[in-house]
Amino acid sequence: MVIVCQATIGENELDLIRERVEAHGGRTYLSRGAEKVIIGCIGDLHEGLEAEINSLPGVESVTKVQTPYKLVASQFRAERTIVRAGGRDGTSIGGDEIALIAGPCSVEGLEMLRETATAVQAVGAGILRGGAFKPRTSPYSFQGLGERGLEYLAEVRRETGMPVVTEVMDARQIDLVAEYADMLQVGARNMQNFTLLAELGRIRRPVLLKRGASATIEELLMAAEYLMAQGARDIILCERGIRTFERATRNTLDLSAIPVLKEETHLPVIADPSHAGGRADLVAPLAYGAVAAGADGLMIEVHPEPEQALSDGDQSLRPAEFELLVEGLRPIAEAAGRRMPFTKATERDAA
Amino acid sequence: MVIVCQATIGENELDLIRERVEAHGGRTYLSRGAEKVIIGCIGDLHEGLEAEINSLPGVESVTKVQTPYKLVASQFRAERTIVRAGGRDGTSIGGDEIALIAGPCSVEGLEMLRETATAVQAVGAGILRGGAFKPRTSPYSFQGLGERGLEYLAEVRRETGMPVVTEVMDARQIDLVAEYADMLQVGARNMQNFTLLAELGRIRRPVLLKRGASATIEELLMAAEYLMAQGARDIILCERGIRTFERATRNTLDLSAIPVLKEETHLPVIADPSHAGGRADLVAPLAYGAVAAGADGLMIEVHPEPEQALSDGDQSLRPAEFELLVEGLRPIAEAAGRRMPFTKATERDAA
Amino acid sequence: MVIVCQATIGENELDLIRERVEAHGGRTYLSRGAEKVIIGCIGDLHEGLEAEINSLPGVESVTKVQTPYKLVASQFRAERTIVRAGGRDGTSIGGDEIALIAGPCSVEGLEMLRETATAVQAVGAGILRGGAFKPRTSPYSFQGLGERGLEYLAEVRRETGMPVVTEVMDARQIDLVAEYADMLQVGARNMQNFTLLAELGRIRRPVLLKRGASATIEELLMAAEYLMAQGARDIILCERGIRTFERATRNTLDLSAIPVLKEETHLPVIADPSHAGGRADLVAPLAYGAVAAGADGLMIEVHPEPEQALSDGDQSLRPAEFELLVEGLRPIAEAAGRRMPFTKATERDAA
Amino acid sequence: MVIVCQATIGENELDLIRERVEAHGGRTYLSRGAEKVIIGCIGDLHEGLEAEINSLPGVESVTKVQTPYKLVASQFRAERTIVRAGGRDGTSIGGDEIALIAGPCSVEGLEMLRETATAVQAVGAGILRGGAFKPRTSPYSFQGLGERGLEYLAEVRRETGMPVVTEVMDARQIDLVAEYADMLQVGARNMQNFTLLAELGRIRRPVLLKRGASATIEELLMAAEYLMAQGARDIILCERGIRTFERATRNTLDLSAIPVLKEETHLPVIADPSHAGGRADLVAPLAYGAVAAGADGLMIEVHPEPEQALSDGDQSLRPAEFELLVEGLRPIAEAAGRRMPFTKATERDAA
Repeated sequence: MVIVCQATIGENELDLIRERVEAHGGRTYLSRGAEKVIIGCIGDLHEGLEAEINSLPGVESVTKVQTPYKLVASQFRAERTIVRAGGRDGTSIGGDEIALIAGPCSVEGLEMLRETATAVQAVGAGILRGGAFKPRTSPYSFQGLGERGLEYLAEVRRETGMPVVTEVMDARQIDLVAEYADMLQVGARNMQNFTLLAELGRIRRPVLLKRGASATIEELLMAAEYLMAQGARDIILCERGIRTFERATRNTLDLSAIPVLKEETHLPVIADPSHAGGRADLVAPLAYGAVAAGADGLMIEVHPEPEQALSDGDQSLRPAEFELLVEGLRPIAEAAGRRMPFTKATERDAA
Repeated sequence: MVIVCQATIGENELDLIRERVEAHGGRTYLSRGAEKVIIGCIGDLHEGLEAEINSLPGVESVTKVQTPYKLVASQFRAERTIVRAGGRDGTSIGGDEIALIAGPCSVEGLEMLRETATAVQAVGAGILRGGAFKPRTSPYSFQGLGERGLEYLAEVRRETGMPVVTEVMDARQIDLVAEYADMLQVGARNMQNFTLLAELGRIRRPVLLKRGASATIEELLMAAEYLMAQGARDIILCERGIRTFERATRNTLDLSAIPVLKEETHLPVIADPSHAGGRADLVAPLAYGAVAAGADGLMIEVHPEPEQALSDGDQSLRPAEFELLVEGLRPIAEAAGRRMPFTKATERDAA
Repeated sequence: MVIVCQATIGENELDLIRERVEAHGGRTYLSRGAEKVIIGCIGDLHEGLEAEINSLPGVESVTKVQTPYKLVASQFRAERTIVRAGGRDGTSIGGDEIALIAGPCSVEGLEMLRETATAVQAVGAGILRGGAFKPRTSPYSFQGLGERGLEYLAEVRRETGMPVVTEVMDARQIDLVAEYADMLQVGARNMQNFTLLAELGRIRRPVLLKRGASATIEELLMAAEYLMAQGARDIILCERGIRTFERATRNTLDLSAIPVLKEETHLPVIADPSHAGGRADLVAPLAYGAVAAGADGLMIEVHPEPEQALSDGDQSLRPAEFELLVEGLRPIAEAAGRRMPFTKATERDAA
Repeated sequence: MVIVCQATIGENELDLIRERVEAHGGRTYLSRGAEKVIIGCIGDLHEGLEAEINSLPGVESVTKVQTPYKLVASQFRAERTIVRAGGRDGTSIGGDEIALIAGPCSVEGLEMLRETATAVQAVGAGILRGGAFKPRTSPYSFQGLGERGLEYLAEVRRETGMPVVTEVMDARQIDLVAEYADMLQVGARNMQNFTLLAELGRIRRPVLLKRGASATIEELLMAAEYLMAQGARDIILCERGIRTFERATRNTLDLSAIPVLKEETHLPVIADPSHAGGRADLVAPLAYGAVAAGADGLMIEVHPEPEQALSDGDQSLRPAEFELLVEGLRPIAEAAGRRMPFTKATERDAA
């Protein structure tokens, strides 16, 4: 149930509403916007309550939420969620500016990470990605550097000021990863690892939630609902390709998911064109398409020497290719009514 | 086998090459570009021939084509194919300008067709679409007006000057449809109707070939190869969504198919965001994404009153919505290095 | 609308019912069973008619058919359809006996066809398959022997007495193919070639309708409805695998389709384990599974020398392997409450 | 690398072989069969080693394993693995006898569990299933009774003697679940939860590994490889339907997976017809098909009152329906060359 109130509603009136809902066993979630205040309610609320609330002072409307997801639903918030990675002055995702998350698939060493971070930051990347714990199909493949990889991420963050995002594969890793990372990533294979989601929801740290390769849009939203039901507020949804019969690409980027998600939820939505196509030559066109269709940001794999990469070399861009991509993206982003992130170069140009 | 020759090669040298290939049972296809001349060869050519040709005057290189498709392959032509619908002064697809194909799913009557055509032409649509023969899942659904529908298309073409494209469902309809239409469409369900393809290839009329809902990119290219093997030169490939498990949309637009096709073939590639999403609210974002990713044009369903449409009402735009879409598309197209078609309005603005 | 009448209902009463339905613009289809007589009705029948019919003498019940398919729906017939290929004494499909359709993918020559037919007939195959017109992904692949292939089929039928089934790819081939074949096959790629279906429905010859590789069960039933709406009565539905992400097999046999179809329709349902798996080693287990799940028959590719086959060699069985398959099938069929076809060998054993 | 030795090879010769492999950094896995002894080797072994080993006494052949999975590969063991749930006298899976695992989706209470267990045991079920921790798409759905559910399972095991299998969703639950359960289940959504797999592999308890809804057969085998690489030996693979476009069923049972897995691996393979079809009316035909195609067992949801079930009621059988299924299964299993489990009833009949 969603209760829309006038922006001018007072605290007493809000308390009164919350009291009534809670008296019926419901939980309430308050969200203030410039033009309205919204109280979202969760729980098995009886039919009569709707009319009762509707008659309270300051209430404009009361409606049932028909979708199985509630807290993530657009109607549940007065405004779109803007996530900040790296605290108050960190990089924002979901606002006017396109967020660029870039870095290697795996953290393979300090030097390569530093080199990649410096290069992508110079052209606008606001968040550094890099896997320390790597989910690999084979137990015999490189599984990531583990905690050492986290240390390298933290070190490069210190040096560059870039917030970092890295994957957490298991609930017991949460505390460790949260010590080092500004944003925690749930990988596609873990999208329905519900115990992981529930625990991640309890720490108040931004979460980047990747869509499972065969998850429906509704299931992705329900996974985000798991996070929010435990308290999480700052969640970014990531379309990274779904599994289909097509064999020319690693996955099939579901472009429709972007506008569908933007309509269904108030959470920011980004795309990962690297995993979607699985081919370096497709990263730029898929990135452009995603932003033109409304994506709030992009997550892109960059490696100084893709042919030497310990994982996902085929889909990694060189720093120079990433720079070209960003140059081509600028006019697309502007055409889509978005801003590109400032960089030293653009600041200099502006000066 | 592809023989690349210097642009300056003479007719005698070309004849010599062709003679050698044909002496070995091969067929040759000549293609002249500004910077090179290409002779594509089809047939079971023996190994020795390659070296023999390579030593002939004017020959730069001889390479085998590894893909199962040959005539449609990028290497087989010196330049990208630009298709013209409606003759020499018709609307071109595959050049710098984004081609807009718009109109109702089905031709339901003369008046509605005229109204739609006038509206979409005013904002830049260069080709009118409309189904006269409709493939419908149920034998009890509206099957199209048949020849009367074709007459209406021809009438509106006379009035507006817009070339028209309409679907041909059966080889026996080809002559009839070709009498009225400038471009013949092969629908998704008929993409592997090989007898239809073979006969369509024999008439020299542009063909719009839609990807089957579960066809791989390679199968789409092989279907185009069927057309070209019979003589067709002017083929447009259309990505219109593939069948996946996702249920929020009618199909899943395979955005990657656009850059993959642009790399694999010299033929123009367009997208049909109406069928891909199956929802009017998704047409604009999918259209923008497709053009940003490199599509040469769009095919969009427009109906004066979608809620009254005899087919596909859910995915049809009103003329006013189409106009908004085109307005939003302009900056995207320019950002992608393309031009939008001129319209009376833009001419007036320019004046 | 389905009208169930007592088995004892008289002709006058039946005429009265039909008259009422037709007076309202409906068409009626009569079906007599041992225990009831059913009149299926098609058309936009107004609400009041139901009550009116219900009160007529001999009528037991009147119900609406909720599914989009009508004539193929189980409720539309008093008994399951049994199709006979090759006339009154031909091979039946849909009765107690498991029907075995076997033969080469393509008719490659008279001798190989004769050899295969003799071998499969000896162990119980009641219908000979063989393609004369072959739909091939590539225009450069062997496209079948055409009419000569049909002549070979007819010749081997004369010699062996086996009815033959072969594919028709285009409406213009129907008359030609019907001259030679006892049963006409619609291939998976043509399942939604609606003009082909409509014309095939008009000739009264059994049709073997294969499910499209990405067709839903409902779409398959709607394709059969196209045939029946034009007059066809003898249709066999064939599950032959659907397209999925799995790469270990050519397609994925949708075993569930068999019981779902058996429930939804009165038409016989067979499986094609050769195309489903695409691997000779999987034919037997898939065949056994299909019959255990309720399939009325099997269609299996057999070739005297699979490694020399001009098409589908990987999935073709040798005659000796087919014999082993049939031996293993016997107890499964009996366990499933079915009979295996008599063969000379079994007759001899029985004597 | 797989080293096949004569069955008569002595310990000294075996030691010599192992020594050589280990000297090159490899790990060895010994497996003794009636007719041969196999030493499987894992590690980056240099080319020369093959010839060196081949010349040692007792060695019959040395071959490379080309598949990415090693320990689970058929070649790695001398005989098929037979898993025993519940210790030495427990229920075996993978031998001649078809294993029946049955019980409710969720443990909802002691009484309903006891009633179900007693009923399914009476007709041949050898293992009791029941979820205590339930992965649910919605955070608001019933999540299982947790430890109380485990206690009920243990109580019913005490009373009936049936070994129990239940799902573990998170590595931290392993010790707790292992205290109560004879076999631990990894659910479809966790098939690629690699940290869970790695830890489960370390405890020596049978694991039932369900195929992910969009996992390829190769990925399923790689998940089992994760378990074996950590020491697990007793793993059962379960085909439970894959996600496709078909909407008549919850998932699509991939029947081919059964014979493909039986060929690729020495591990037992069972099917879950309840989740595959998602419909009670499809459980029996899918179960029959799976056993006819070679499945070693079945996992079936049974509930005393499906319409009251807290989860998966649509696909649950009543005890009486399960009994009918088992009756129908008996002749199928025998036709497939398997035995059905003894029950009190069959013992009585035999007496």
